[in-house]
Amino acid sequence: MNATTASATGAPATSLQDIIAHAKEYGFVFPSSEIYDGLQAVYDYGQNGVELKNNLKTVWWKAMTQLHDEVVGIDAAIFMHPLTWKASGHVDSFNDPMIDNRDSKKRYRADQLLEGKAEAYANAGDEARAQALLNEMGRLLGENDLDGVRNLIIAEGIKCPISGTDNWTEVRQFNLMFSTQVGSVAEDASTIYLRPETAQGIFVNFLNVQKTGRMKVPFGIAQIGKAFRNEIVARQFTFRMREFEQMEMQYFVRPGTEMEWYNSWKQTRLAFHKAVGLPAEKLKYHDHEKLAHYANAAVDIEYQFPFGFREIEGIHSRTDFDLKAHQDLSKKKQQYFDNDIDPATGKPYGNYIPYVVETSVGADRLFLAVFCNAFTKETVGEGEQQKERTYLKLHPALAPVKAAVFPLVRKDGLPEKAEQIVKALRSEFRVIMEERDAIGKRYTRQDLIGTPFCIAVDYQTLEDDTVTIRHRNTMEQERVPISELKAKIGYAVSMERILEQL
Amino acid sequence: MNATTASATGAPATSLQDIIAHAKEYGFVFPSSEIYDGLQAVYDYGQNGVELKNNLKTVWWKAMTQLHDEVVGIDAAIFMHPLTWKASGHVDSFNDPMIDNRDSKKRYRADQLLEGKAEAYANAGDEARAQALLNEMGRLLGENDLDGVRNLIIAEGIKCPISGTDNWTEVRQFNLMFSTQVGSVAEDASTIYLRPETAQGIFVNFLNVQKTGRMKVPFGIAQIGKAFRNEIVARQFTFRMREFEQMEMQYFVRPGTEMEWYNSWKQTRLAFHKAVGLPAEKLKYHDHEKLAHYANAAVDIEYQFPFGFREIEGIHSRTDFDLKAHQDLSKKKQQYFDNDIDPATGKPYGNYIPYVVETSVGADRLFLAVFCNAFTKETVGEGEQQKERTYLKLHPALAPVKAAVFPLVRKDGLPEKAEQIVKALRSEFRVIMEERDAIGKRYTRQDLIGTPFCIAVDYQTLEDDTVTIRHRNTMEQERVPISELKAKIGYAVSMERILEQL
Repeated sequence: MNATTASATGAPATSLQDIIAHAKEYGFVFPSSEIYDGLQAVYDYGQNGVELKNNLKTVWWKAMTQLHDEVVGIDAAIFMHPLTWKASGHVDSFNDPMIDNRDSKKRYRADQLLEGKAEAYANAGDEARAQALLNEMGRLLGENDLDGVRNLIIAEGIKCPISGTDNWTEVRQFNLMFSTQVGSVAEDASTIYLRPETAQGIFVNFLNVQKTGRMKVPFGIAQIGKAFRNEIVARQFTFRMREFEQMEMQYFVRPGTEMEWYNSWKQTRLAFHKAVGLPAEKLKYHDHEKLAHYANAAVDIEYQFPFGFREIEGIHSRTDFDLKAHQDLSKKKQQYFDNDIDPATGKPYGNYIPYVVETSVGADRLFLAVFCNAFTKETVGEGEQQKERTYLKLHPALAPVKAAVFPLVRKDGLPEKAEQIVKALRSEFRVIMEERDAIGKRYTRQDLIGTPFCIAVDYQTLEDDTVTIRHRNTMEQERVPISELKAKIGYAVSMERILEQL
Repeated sequence: MNATTASATGAPATSLQDIIAHAKEYGFVFPSSEIYDGLQAVYDYGQNGVELKNNLKTVWWKAMTQLHDEVVGIDAAIFMHPLTWKASGHVDSFNDPMIDNRDSKKRYRADQLLEGKAEAYANAGDEARAQALLNEMGRLLGENDLDGVRNLIIAEGIKCPISGTDNWTEVRQFNLMFSTQVGSVAEDASTIYLRPETAQGIFVNFLNVQKTGRMKVPFGIAQIGKAFRNEIVARQFTFRMREFEQMEMQYFVRPGTEMEWYNSWKQTRLAFHKAVGLPAEKLKYHDHEKLAHYANAAVDIEYQFPFGFREIEGIHSRTDFDLKAHQDLSKKKQQYFDNDIDPATGKPYGNYIPYVVETSVGADRLFLAVFCNAFTKETVGEGEQQKERTYLKLHPALAPVKAAVFPLVRKDGLPEKAEQIVKALRSEFRVIMEERDAIGKRYTRQDLIGTPFCIAVDYQTLEDDTVTIRHRNTMEQERVPISELKAKIGYAVSMERILEQL
C-alpha cells in the first residue's frame, strides 16, 4: 500500500492526508462529535460536503429511476423485523474472527494477523509459503475451526506488536451487527438490529412493489440509505465507516437470464462513474475469485484512491438466495407469475422466484473518489509570476455552489446589483454572494470548494448590464449580458448534462 | 378526537383508514417487514411514496439553502459521542413515566392513565375536577415524585382495562433513547445512542461550520436526517413512529434579537407549507403554554389531519441552552466574535454564545399532511354519467410521476413513437410509458398516484407530430406539438415554481 499516487499530469502527488485536511478546512467532512474528541470511524458532512454528496445521490437516483422505465425506488426503514436477518444469514454468519492478546489487552482480527504474516513471506520473496498460509487459513475459517486458527497463529510465531508476546486468548466470532432493544424494558422488549445492508429492505418489499406497481420482470428496485457495521478495524477516512450510506439496486430477472443482465449492468454502472467525472484510467473491474454463498458471479468496480485501487461499487448476481430464504422463513410465497411465452414450450413461463442482479455503491466511497479526483494542484504562470494553484475540478452539476457573485466594491450600488442577480438565479440553482476580500482572493476561495462560475459585478455593469464570468478550470473570463446568465449557467450546472450521457 | 373530517367542498369525508388503504394500495407507504407481520410503529415508503417524500425534502432543502444566502446545510451522522446526550439533557431527562399492571402484565404511561381519567371527568361535565387532577399530576411529575404518581393512580381508582385490577407496580422513568454497543464486546466497548433528534448534530458542528464557512451571525445550519425514539405508545400511522425523519434548521443570532427572528421564521415557515399546497384554512399556529426547559418561546404549526389538528412543525427560541451546555461539558469555547458595531457603545459587540431559533419539521408528518390534503374524492358528470372519481391533487413539482405517455394501441408504430417521447423528456423529469389497459383505465390509474399530465399518442401523432395532453385536476385535454412538450411540462413540474413563491 503506497500512501500517495502521482497524478497523470505529473503534478505533485496527492496523499490521503492532503485530502483529509482539505475536506476539513473547506467544510466537506468533519470528524463526528469533534468537540468531544470524536467518535471513531464516524464522520459528518459539512456545508460543502453535504451538497456534493446530495448531488451524487440525486444523480444516481435519477440515473436509476428516471432513465430506466422499469426501475423504481423505495425507502425502507433502518429498523426491520429481526427475522429478516435470520433469513439473510446475518445473525448466524456476519462475523469477524477476533483474538485478544492477554498482555497488551489489544484485540485483533485473527484473519488479518495471518494475512500480515503471508504478506511478510511474499515481501521476502517466498510467494509459495505466503499462498500456502492463506490457503490453510481459508480452509480453517471455512470449517469454522477457530482453535485451528489460534494454533496456526501460534505456530507461525505471530506476536502482538504492542506486548511482543504470543499470549493469545481463544479466537471468537464477533457479529458485526449493532443491536438495540425496542419496546419498553420489560418482557415485551425485543432485540432488533441496525441494518448491516440496505438490500434486505428491498427483498422484503419485493411483492409489495411488484403488485402495487404492476411491475413486469425484468424490473429493478433502487434504494439509498444508511447501513451500520460494528467494524473492529475501521480506517482510511470515510472509506470504511461504522455508519455509512449505500445506493443499491436489485434487479429481478427470469432465472437463466441473470448473466445477460449482470453483464449489461456491469457496463451501465461503469458508464455512470465515468459520467460523474471519474477518468477511465482510474477505474477498473475486479472479478471476485471467491464468491459469497449467495452469488454466482460478482465483480467490483474499483477506483484508484491515494491508498490504491479499492471497491466503490459491487455488482453481484445473487441468484434467488434471498427471496427463497425469506419465503422459507416467512412461509409467504415470493413468486412471480410470468405470462410471457416460453418459445421452448409455447406456454407462459409461469410461476418462479426471480433471480437477482444487484448493483451496490458505497455513497461515501463514491464521494471520496469524486473528491480525490477533483482535488487538483497545478503550477500556473511563468517566471516570477509562477505559482501553485489548488482547485476542485468537480463536474459543475456536482459542485456545492454553482455560481458566486462578487460586487467589485462594497459601495456605489454594486452590492445591490449583485444581490439582484443572486435573487434572479437562486430559484434555479445554488448561487451565493461574496463581498469580502480582494477579488483575487475570492476567486481562490471559490476554486477551493469547486465553484465552476464566478460572476464579477463592476462599474461597467451599472452602465450596460453586463458582467464578467470567470471559469474555474481555465480561469478564462468573458463578458456576458446579465439576461443571458440563467440560460448560460443553468444548463451547464444541471443534472441533465450528466444524465444525457447515459 | 374525531375519526373523519368533512372536506371543504362538501365531498365525502376522508378517514385515516381511507388514507392508509390508499397509501398501501398505490405504493406510497407499506408496513415495515410486512412478510414477517410487521414491526410496530415503523413504516417503509414504496415506489410512489419515496418520490413524494424526496420531493418534499428537496424543496425544503432548496428553500433553506438556496433561498437564504446565510443558511447552509450539513449531514451529521446518527451516531454521536455519548457525551452529546449528557449535555443536551437527554440521558437524564428524556423519559416517560411507566407503570405495569401485575395481573395483565400490560404496561402503560402513567401520565396517560391520569389524563384519561381527567378526560372522563371532563366528559361527565366536571371540568373543575379534571383540571385539578391534571394540575396535581403536573406537580408530581415536575417534582419527579413517582410514588406520588402511583398513589394518585390508585386514589383515583384507575384500573387496568385488561385485568380490571389496580394491582400496579411502582412507576419508573423509561428513557426513550435507543442504545447500542460500539466497539468489540470486551472492555473497550461503549454505549452510544441513536440520536433522538437531529438538532445536536448541528450544535456540535456549530464552530466547524462557522469557521470553515466564514459565516457571520445571523446564520443558519439546516439538516435532514433520521432520528429514533423508543415510543411506548406509537400510533396514527406515520404520524408518530419509532424511526422518523426530521428537517431542522438552527438559526444562530445575537442575544436579544431572538424574538425578532423567531417571529420572522414563524411567517417564513407558514408560507412554505402553503407553497407546497396545504390550504390556509387547514393550518394554524399553536403557541406552547408550557415551555421546554431550554426555550423562551415556542409555537407549533398544526395541520388539520383526519384525526384533528396536530403539529407538523415546531419553531422554538432555544436561547443559548445547547451551546452553553456543550461548552460546559466539552470545555471548548462555543463563542462567536461579532465585529459589528453596537450603537449603544460605539464598539464591536464582541464575544458571545449565540442564541438559537430552531425550525423543526417532521418530514413524515409533512408527507402525511400533503398526502391527506391531496386525497380527493369528487362526483363528476351528470345523470346516468355521474360517477365518483378519486385522485391525488398533488402540486405537480411534488408528484411521483410527472407525465405518463400512452400509445393508444400496441401496434402500428405507436409504442415506438411513445418511447421516443419518453426518451426525449426523461433526462429532465420523471416520465413513464404505459401501454396496458384501455385508455380510460390508464387515466384513472395515473390519477390515483397524482400524475399531473398524461400524454396520449394516437394515429394523428404519426401524421402531424402532435399529442393530447390530459390535465389531472380538470380532466381537460388539449392538442399540442411534441416539440412543445418539454417547455410546457418542464417548468410546470419544476421545483422553481414552488421556490418562486417564497
